[in-house]
Parts: sequence; structure tokens; C-alpha cells
Amino acid sequence: MAVFNMALLQLDTQDEKETNLRRISEMIDEAASKRARFICMPEMANYIGIGDGPFNNAEDIPGGKTCALFSEKAKEHGVWIHGGSICERIHDEKRVYNTTVVMNPKGEIAAKYRKIHLYDIDVKNGISFRESDTIKPGDDIVNFDSDFGPMGLAICYDIRFPELYRLLTLRGAKLIFNPAEFNIFTGKDHWENLVRARAIENVCYMVAPGQFGPKKTFHTYGRSIVVDPWGNVVAKASDRECIVMAEIDMDYVDHMREQVPCVKNRRPETYKW
Amino acid sequence: MAVFNMALLQLDTQDEKETNLRRISEMIDEAASKRARFICMPEMANYIGIGDGPFNNAEDIPGGKTCALFSEKAKEHGVWIHGGSICERIHDEKRVYNTTVVMNPKGEIAAKYRKIHLYDIDVKNGISFRESDTIKPGDDIVNFDSDFGPMGLAICYDIRFPELYRLLTLRGAKLIFNPAEFNIFTGKDHWENLVRARAIENVCYMVAPGQFGPKKTFHTYGRSIVVDPWGNVVAKASDRECIVMAEIDMDYVDHMREQVPCVKNRRPETYKW
Repeated sequence: MAVFNMALLQLDTQDEKETNLRRISEMIDEAASKRARFICMPEMANYIGIGDGPFNNAEDIPGGKTCALFSEKAKEHGVWIHGGSICERIHDEKRVYNTTVVMNPKGEIAAKYRKIHLYDIDVKNGISFRESDTIKPGDDIVNFDSDFGPMGLAICYDIRFPELYRLLTLRGAKLIFNPAEFNIFTGKDHWENLVRARAIENVCYMVAPGQFGPKKTFHTYGRSIVVDPWGNVVAKASDRECIVMAEIDMDYVDHMREQVPCVKNRRPETYKW
Repeated sequence: MAVFNMALLQLDTQDEKETNLRRISEMIDEAASKRARFICMPEMANYIGIGDGPFNNAEDIPGGKTCALFSEKAKEHGVWIHGGSICERIHDEKRVYNTTVVMNPKGEIAAKYRKIHLYDIDVKNGISFRESDTIKPGDDIVNFDSDFGPMGLAICYDIRFPELYRLLTLRGAKLIFNPAEFNIFTGKDHWENLVRARAIENVCYMVAPGQFGPKKTFHTYGRSIVVDPWGNVVAKASDRECIVMAEIDMDYVDHMREQVPCVKNRRPETYKW
């Protein structure tokens, strides 16, 4: 099953979790009715707020109601679900993990990734944000096998670290998810460029669903995209909450890698880290 | 001296070396008259041909006439010269190195870099080229200090390997040269994207002079560019042989790295190569 439909839910998540989960549930149903076999979401899919909000809305994985919803919907529609990311509770700690959960069509957790690189940024007259104040970084790079082939996981700010995508590729990924809550200020100049670069240099699909619109945190960029292994943007969201559909052909990755063998042409013996 | 003028010679190098060197000499004079303090050139600046041409036109470095010209012109104008790249003779071998030479204003070699990643590509209905048939790869990553600050060297196809640019950055580079003989087929989709990505992810200047126009090898892409540490294309060539001028401010790199600290936010302990 090399060819399948991917649905990206471009969400406008706000700070009322019940409302967000209801909207996610409706959009999953709609994406399934459009024959999506894999449905993915942006970073912080179930809640975006400030202060103690993220901590108070964190959940156990598994165990929380958001995972329960993803699991139930995956089984109901017989689809794979990538839940963007949610805040994962850490016992005895005031911070949380920023965690992606992937559900298989049996409703079981197929993969779990905790964001490695935290967004600590301070752009003059632009955006200031210290994710590490509230989030604890993960330490593990996560690949997983799906019915459609090998895939890899990353989140938002990770996109500035090509090391991660290269390692995911060397470990077999032919498609990498990059859910995001990109800021409009950095997004306008960096989002599409960096997502495309990761696709080109690793000759892989990049699937990048983004949050759209103003939040309590900041104004998010949207423009969810799917990039093919040549670097073509093959699907892109309008500036609103919406579903983006893209046909993915995992064999096209192998085909392109024969033609542009840059992953094979690496010279690791010269890279003295 | 953090602020200085960089000149990029966008050359249309062909297979008569004397003609090419005469044109380079004239363009260096013109760039110096425009107050350039650093003058750079594209890959294969002094000769582009097929068959035994590159081998027969290879030179010793130092010792060949191309280096002698660069040295003489650097002294004459009191400028830094980055000679794009030329074929460097290897004794007792049928292949050559694809080598960048940087001359300081005293006419001395300040740095020498042999291209590490070779362009072996075979795009269906596109471009087919095996650089490794005629070129021997270098093994060393090269940084150097200039009057304007620390810089790094790369050539053309290297751009698909983010590892190299990251290592140049970790070793101190605030500006990286990427001379190229990019093909029009890959160039239209990959050139500007990848050069911008290297600038954004390393928060550095990228200076990328390209060959322009049809050659005996293939049709080259041109579009020489200078990208600032935010990822803005601050100078770009028209589609002809020409000189592109850009003002570089090396302090702006430090300023941007304080705001977007992604080089500092790396998590090397999680990168298990």
C-alpha cells in the first residue's frame, strides 16, 4: 500500500479543551469521509493557553481523554491518527512534555515522540517566547513503521535542526511529520523554506500541519503543507481552519532517491562532530 | 571592520582558459573599482569543458597561472579574492581535485578547500552527471579567518549536506561561501531554497556565486545570491554575466544569533550518528 491519502487538520485551537476536542472529533470524521487513511494535526492540538493553562490541561499518555478520543476515532474509521502534539503530564514535576502520539487503526499507540528542541527565542520587535520555562525536552529520536512504510517524528522548532531529520532518514524514514504552532513573524520567512529544505536534502515527504490564527500565546502562521521528495509543495492550506488532502506515494521516495542519491553520497568520515 | 562590500562575479566560463582568465581579470578590476573588499567567483571559474579538458587544464596550487593571477590581482587592489574553484592537479593520478583557493590582500593563500561531496546524479528526463569519474573528493572541512571575521568554505553539491554547514558554523564561521555550477533543472527548484535554509538554520551569511548560461557540460542556472542571517536574499544576479555587490555586516550575525539562538539550542547528546 504505497499510495494513500493523507489529511492534515489545520486547527484553530484555543484555550477551552472541550471545544477543541469536539472540533477535532468533527474534523476527523470529515477527513475520514474524504477517504483519508492517515489523519494528522498540528502542535498543541487540544489546548493552547497561557500561564498555568498548559500544565493544568496536561494529560497522561496513555490515560488522558485526548488519547482516548484519538484511539476511539482511529478504530471507528480504521485510520492512522497522528495527534499533532499535546502536553504530557510528568509526575512530580511542574513542567510537561510536548508530545506527539500516533495511533494505529486498532486504536493502539504506535509511536510517541517528545519534542527535543525547545523554542527559546527573543526577536527584537518580533516575538519573544521561552518554551523551556514550561516544557521539559525529550531525549529520543523516534521512527515508526506504518502500513504505508517507515516514518519519522519531529515538532515545530525542531525544523531548525537538520541533524534530527538526517538521523530520522538514516534510520529509514521516507516521510517525516512536522506539526507546528509557528509564529506569523518567523513563519512568513522560515516555515515553507525550512520544510522544503528538509524534503530536498533527505529526498523524503514532509507533512507539516500548522495551527492557524490568533491565540492567547501569539498569532500563528498556518499554511499547512505537504512537500514531495523533490521539494514541490503538493498541497497547501488556505488561511483558515480547514482540511488539506494530499496523495502520498511512498514508492516515489525510492524512485527519487535513485536519481538524487545525496543521502547515499554523504561523507560521514569527514564529519568530526 | 565588520562592514564591507562583497562582489560576486557571475561568470559564463567556457572551454578556452585564456579567454576565461582575461574576463576574470577584467571583472576583478571592475569589482575593485566598485569598492569591493572581497571578490568571489563560481565553481570552475577558469575552465568548463568535457572529456579530458578538465584534466588537461588542471593546475598546481600554488604554481599554476590561475593562482598567479588571483595572487597578483589581490595585491594590486589590496582585496581578498575567493577564486570559486578550479581543477587542482594531483600527481600520479588521472583525476583532479575541485578546489577553492582564497587569497589575502598580500597575495598569499589564506585557505584551500577541496570539494567533499561529489555530484553523482541521474535524474530521468533531466540531468545525468558523474563528477566522481573525473574528480577526487577532498576529506577536510575548511574554516579560515579574514580581516572581516571567521568564514567557511563549501562548493556547489555540498549544499545538499547540512552536516557540512553546521560543522563550519560550530567551528566559528559567520559567513559561508558556496560557489556553484548548478544545473538549470535542479537549480530552478533547489538552489535558492537550500542556500536560504543554510543561512536560516545556522544564522549566518551565505555567499553563493554561480555559473550562468549554456556550457559544453550542461545549461547552468546562475542566480548568484547573497543571503543574510535571517534568510533574506539581499542581492541577486540577473540572468547574464555580471557583478553582484552586497554590503555584509558581520556584527549582524552576532545580533541575529542572540535573537534566534538555534545553534546554541542544539541537543548534540541526542544525535547518535
